Amino acid sequence: MKKPFVSLFLAVPLLFSAVPASAGGGAALHFEPGRSALVVTDPQNDFLREDGKLYGLLKDNLARLDTVANLERLMQAAKAGGYLFAVDPLVYGALDGQWTQAGALQRQLLDMGALRRDAAGGGDFYARFKPYIDDPATVVVAPHKLYGPESNDLIYQLRSRGIDTVVLAGLVANLCVDSHLRALMENGFRVYVVKDAVGAPGEAAYQAALVNFGMIANGVLSTAEAVAALRR
Amino acid sequence: MKKPFVSLFLAVPLLFSAVPASAGGGAALHFEPGRSALVVTDPQNDFLREDGKLYGLLKDNLARLDTVANLERLMQAAKAGGYLFAVDPLVYGALDGQWTQAGALQRQLLDMGALRRDAAGGGDFYARFKPYIDDPATVVVAPHKLYGPESNDLIYQLRSRGIDTVVLAGLVANLCVDSHLRALMENGFRVYVVKDAVGAPGEAAYQAALVNFGMIANGVLSTAEAVAALRR
Amino acid sequence: MKKPFVSLFLAVPLLFSAVPASAGGGAALHFEPGRSALVVTDPQNDFLREDGKLYGLLKDNLARLDTVANLERLMQAAKAGGYLFAVDPLVYGALDGQWTQAGALQRQLLDMGALRRDAAGGGDFYARFKPYIDDPATVVVAPHKLYGPESNDLIYQLRSRGIDTVVLAGLVANLCVDSHLRALMENGFRVYVVKDAVGAPGEAAYQAALVNFGMIANGVLSTAEAVAALRR
Amino acid sequence: MKKPFVSLFLAVPLLFSAVPASAGGGAALHFEPGRSALVVTDPQNDFLREDGKLYGLLKDNLARLDTVANLERLMQAAKAGGYLFAVDPLVYGALDGQWTQAGALQRQLLDMGALRRDAAGGGDFYARFKPYIDDPATVVVAPHKLYGPESNDLIYQLRSRGIDTVVLAGLVANLCVDSHLRALMENGFRVYVVKDAVGAPGEAAYQAALVNFGMIANGVLSTAEAVAALRR
Repeated sequence: MKKPFVSLFLAVPLLFSAVPASAGGGAALHFEPGRSALVVTDPQNDFLREDGKLYGLLKDNLARLDTVANLERLMQAAKAGGYLFAVDPLVYGALDGQWTQAGALQRQLLDMGALRRDAAGGGDFYARFKPYIDDPATVVVAPHKLYGPESNDLIYQLRSRGIDTVVLAGLVANLCVDSHLRALMENGFRVYVVKDAVGAPGEAAYQAALVNFGMIANGVLSTAEAVAALRR
Repeated sequence: MKKPFVSLFLAVPLLFSAVPASAGGGAALHFEPGRSALVVTDPQNDFLREDGKLYGLLKDNLARLDTVANLERLMQAAKAGGYLFAVDPLVYGALDGQWTQAGALQRQLLDMGALRRDAAGGGDFYARFKPYIDDPATVVVAPHKLYGPESNDLIYQLRSRGIDTVVLAGLVANLCVDSHLRALMENGFRVYVVKDAVGAPGEAAYQAALVNFGMIANGVLSTAEAVAALRR
Repeated sequence: MKKPFVSLFLAVPLLFSAVPASAGGGAALHFEPGRSALVVTDPQNDFLREDGKLYGLLKDNLARLDTVANLERLMQAAKAGGYLFAVDPLVYGALDGQWTQAGALQRQLLDMGALRRDAAGGGDFYARFKPYIDDPATVVVAPHKLYGPESNDLIYQLRSRGIDTVVLAGLVANLCVDSHLRALMENGFRVYVVKDAVGAPGEAAYQAALVNFGMIANGVLSTAEAVAALRR
Repeated sequence: MKKPFVSLFLAVPLLFSAVPASAGGGAALHFEPGRSALVVTDPQNDFLREDGKLYGLLKDNLARLDTVANLERLMQAAKAGGYLFAVDPLVYGALDGQWTQAGALQRQLLDMGALRRDAAGGGDFYARFKPYIDDPATVVVAPHKLYGPESNDLIYQLRSRGIDTVVLAGLVANLCVDSHLRALMENGFRVYVVKDAVGAPGEAAYQAALVNFGMIANGVLSTAEAVAALRR
């Protein structure tokens, strides 16, 4: 006889109200500076600035979630609490268009010249976040090239400081955030995703991200919950 | 001035009708035996057999898509065409429950004793697929432990044979299939996902998988399109 | 002006006498159960049993170092101290000979049928170690396929238990032990190699291993030093 | 009965004279532009310029092998033959000294301020190589952080262009070159090391590198052999 099993699979809508700040039960979630870090993916102009090449696709979701303000709240809380803040950008270089194996959307991004560090500044960091990113204690890792951190130094930078828990937010919810979630967890990190400090290209993509965050992550938090847990 | 840009981001519903069998345009998709492989994730009893621990969650989607028959069609086509067929199961061992960092659903799977190679046989291969899996030319890689192939020999087995293109199908659409898609592409593989040879725990999870497949993969195919492309 | 610099590069011979049990200075080395594990590579018949396919190449070095007894001392100390003991074998399967990219020695090993789990038992664990390996608390990871743990679950098994420090020993010193050292450190583990609980195919290969262990590792220990540090 | 076996293990000294330019037998080695790349690790001032922080340790070996001239010959041959040339530097950033898990030599390099992109220029590319490195067709990947390419985009850049074979040279023979050799081969690349276009901190370290190159790589070439094979 199978045990009764209230599945995350079926309980996805329930899950998002039911998951407490702590992944495991009644106790409040506890982050420890020195073992936990805030990781933000792709906080760059092409996603966030009004003239950004991808802003038009994200703006409704960004506005509904209040993503930019929430990301700033997370950065402030991480700095105030003495946590490592690591930024993991997506930047394409001059030769990256040569990739013969590029995936569907990646090919479009390459062809449209998105996320480059050129005069247009689409790959540069969004101005409002610069005080936190330029802080000398912030770790800015090398750009990733597809959606996850498999080809940059994020995991090395975290592991080399004894960090095993990540509070994860940024752009794009179902692409780079989801890929970072998966890759970090395949490496044995505990990962908590901040569901209103992300942005997605439309509601279907946002719902896709939520479904996966809920099943995969150690926990799914609101910014308010994450900030509270970083304050301890 | 930005160039006009019909985005995959916005065009997701359109995308699934619009993407031809070939990723790139008018020409029909061309797989080459020796460079391409069929990879199937998790073709195991706990997902597919009526008494499987997770079958109840998947059965509606499996029935609607005709997943089992489609997976068998793919296996037949791969064998008939002389392609490598690689199987990548998810199996938990006796000590895996010790993982202190396990994610939400992974913790549930561990606690409920799913996907074990024990007397109940939930981790064993589904009987209908055994003729293809037991074929001496089939590569059965070591089990993965979370959802992707980061911790097993799948990528090594493919790369060591000169394979750079994967036709991907199996269980569970938004978890192991999506994680394999992402991890293989982070390694530079071309990946084509077969959208009706997967299975998901409900329509929301299936839609989540489709959104991500469409943006990330090199192409999203029906079984009929994949079989045709494997026949060449 | 450059600071004076007594280099590990130049000080290799000195290093091996000078390195204390602790990596860092005067204090004795401190391993913590729960954060540290003993990892042994390739404790298998083809390397260690008199009729093993590779034994003839290793036997002088094994005898000089007293490797088998030292490995047993480490296993006993790990078990007595409550440390995780993880075994990482090298096993080739029936189809692995297909690898078109195999390296020089790997090709020879494949062609000679070494390290297989067949009737000859060359890939099976060496009998003297079985009481420790068969202990239900021992983690036996999936076989690696070249020399390092990149394609198996070793790192996942360690990270998922919160382990960040490895005491490393086993066969072959300059191949699998060195590759495990490098791969574990690339993942941010602290690694201490036990220099007399390894075995090499001749003195030149052993010296090669010592040179690299000394430069790369967090520390190089004798079995006596490692056992003392595991006892705390 | 064991088959007769002339082992690479025992035949290491023999190996280096016996290995032909082709890995496998009588036929001359054949590189294909489009599938093969030249990868050079760490061609930087701290290793190669007279005032470099590590130059003193390497200079005898560099002089004996004529490493700088050989590296230039390889770069010329790669460019002339239409091969991808990828450069993989080792650079430390301002915060990298925080790594609590740093290995023995890595700790020394961090503490002495080696390989930084600062006014001293130790981490900058060696002037004689700049014409090849500054060529717009050259791929300069993100810096690695320990010794191998696990934490940068080298493998992604190669795989995304369909490259499966690497001609490998650079600094330091037994550290970054050996680590790149191992990591590339764990990913299924064929790797040919150019034994006189490397540099080591002393003869023991160079011999250590040669022992490992001979056992692990697909082939060990002289610069003359590599240049000939790149010319085809």
